[in-house]
Amino acid sequence: MTTTTAEPRSTEPRTAPATTAELRSADLERRIAQDPAGFRVLTGDRPTGALHLGHYFGSLRNRVRLQDLGVDVIVLIPDYQVITDRDTAERLGEYTDGLLLDYLALGIDPARSTVFTHSAVPALNQLMLPFLSLVSVAELNRNPTVKDEVAHSRQSTVSGLMLTYPVHQAADILSCKGDVVPVGLDQLPHLELTRTIARRFNERYGKLFPEPEALLSAAPLLLGTDGTKMSKSRANSIPLSATADETARLLKGATTDADRHITYDPDTRPNVASLVLLAALCLERDPHEVAAEIGDGGAAALKRTVTDAVNSHLERFRARRAEYAKDLTYVRSVLRAGNERANALAEATLDEVREAMGAFR
Amino acid sequence: MTTTTAEPRSTEPRTAPATTAELRSADLERRIAQDPAGFRVLTGDRPTGALHLGHYFGSLRNRVRLQDLGVDVIVLIPDYQVITDRDTAERLGEYTDGLLLDYLALGIDPARSTVFTHSAVPALNQLMLPFLSLVSVAELNRNPTVKDEVAHSRQSTVSGLMLTYPVHQAADILSCKGDVVPVGLDQLPHLELTRTIARRFNERYGKLFPEPEALLSAAPLLLGTDGTKMSKSRANSIPLSATADETARLLKGATTDADRHITYDPDTRPNVASLVLLAALCLERDPHEVAAEIGDGGAAALKRTVTDAVNSHLERFRARRAEYAKDLTYVRSVLRAGNERANALAEATLDEVREAMGAFR
Repeated sequence: MTTTTAEPRSTEPRTAPATTAELRSADLERRIAQDPAGFRVLTGDRPTGALHLGHYFGSLRNRVRLQDLGVDVIVLIPDYQVITDRDTAERLGEYTDGLLLDYLALGIDPARSTVFTHSAVPALNQLMLPFLSLVSVAELNRNPTVKDEVAHSRQSTVSGLMLTYPVHQAADILSCKGDVVPVGLDQLPHLELTRTIARRFNERYGKLFPEPEALLSAAPLLLGTDGTKMSKSRANSIPLSATADETARLLKGATTDADRHITYDPDTRPNVASLVLLAALCLERDPHEVAAEIGDGGAAALKRTVTDAVNSHLERFRARRAEYAKDLTYVRSVLRAGNERANALAEATLDEVREAMGAFR
Repeated sequence: MTTTTAEPRSTEPRTAPATTAELRSADLERRIAQDPAGFRVLTGDRPTGALHLGHYFGSLRNRVRLQDLGVDVIVLIPDYQVITDRDTAERLGEYTDGLLLDYLALGIDPARSTVFTHSAVPALNQLMLPFLSLVSVAELNRNPTVKDEVAHSRQSTVSGLMLTYPVHQAADILSCKGDVVPVGLDQLPHLELTRTIARRFNERYGKLFPEPEALLSAAPLLLGTDGTKMSKSRANSIPLSATADETARLLKGATTDADRHITYDPDTRPNVASLVLLAALCLERDPHEVAAEIGDGGAAALKRTVTDAVNSHLERFRARRAEYAKDLTYVRSVLRAGNERANALAEATLDEVREAMGAFR
């Protein structure tokens, strides 16, 4: 549900005309600003590895911003989705602890926001049943989410869980009646089946669900140290949990090119541009200016600049994360309390669903 | 999960050699007799109409027999399966009340047996998620249960709920770790996917589930009043809830043939034989003897004999049912208590499943 790929040049001035989805998202952003308490955001991260800088600039910061605006932010750790595209869930507890530490250190406030796991909320999962009755197998077979998942799967066959994944996603969002889902442009189709299920349920049994809207996130394109998309399941990311030294080492190994003159040109020099952009994001400056300052310093100077910028930007975050890491009992109690709230929300929704469907009890 | 079609001539002496499934079932029956408390049976009836005489002789009597032997009998009213093959659940509350009345009047004892509904047990439904990860879409597409369901469906498209139906059935059975499932011969393949899921889960995450065994029920072939299979969703059955007068009227309208000499010959005179068999079952007599006694009395005498036999056999049942019908508050409290026990069993199983899968919480 999170992404780091949507908007390659978010810091560039726009020239292309805005799409309908972008106009809708901008309108949603305006309505949120007017009445933040009137909206509930559902978002989350799969517990399959450590969150990295791509997540940070692409989605995590935006969550904290929405929370601080006064929106009800619900962060799902979809543990069951881990077994959607791999056989078993490795190091699940460790990754979940890591996500919790990142959230808290970033400023997700348990008094205002909610963090929960899939497997702890039976009423959410029960919604799979009525929702599965509202979609055809043909629709599931041609669903873009399923096709994406199949393409990235580590399994040789398509499992029943994979095929029904978008229905489970609908249960995630609708169990808490989330009405805003932050997505990248490439993920827009993923929300469509949830909207379809909400609409069909409302038509058949009476209006109960919102049709959730997509909030497009302007995620910068940060490449991994190997020059491909930064991913928590590849070994090419700069994890938020890395120390300053580890971060320096990882950035030192990043792919660049032979031209000693540093410029910001994402199209022709993607690896160099990604490092420049990362520095610019941390420094809250224009990437062209950052590049110009480095000038003929070459890759070594670029990497020093990026490393300093990242380490300085994350200093406070790292200190807070280290503090929380000393008290995992507290950290896990945040998840327990979140699971309790998610259960209460999902049970209330499930009761309404049973009632609307007539005498299910 | 119940049937009335399995064994056309159960009162006839067997001539064909027993199949492997039959030998296994007979062995299971022996093991149950030796240690009834060591077994848990899961069975049930969809709340899509009134139970009839076919159910009574085919499965309901057998449940009471198993309960009285000391087996833990769990009766599922699978309300979510109602929306598997039709768009909405009509008269669900009414049908569920009817099932409860039938069970209680037949002798299902809430102190020893458990009656519950699907939709009231979220932990059962949650098991769909891990179980869906253990089967491939290809397996679901070629599953005989799904093919059967599609053939009998009232819908034009195959829904996601229909395709995943056998996985939900596995969740039904395994959520309470049922180890015995009464089925007709034609339903043997339906249990296979549950056994497969149990086996795969045990192999991947450690032994947790029994591989449930089929207990073949010798269900007599009772035809409906129109000469086709008696079915609660057609208008051709003799419901258990019918009064003596209604039963007389329904039997009077049953299809027979032009031969006034009554015989018991299921192959050549299926309609007459079905009525003779029904009388014989109620009277606990041999159907040939019953036919011989009617002799040349024709259809009218046959129908009088059957009507008297049925009404006399059901007299006590009807009196008990009428008593329970005066106190629906009590009747529904039986379901509530059953749902509580089913929730406790399913939650315990779900906890073990989460633990076995590693740190899901």
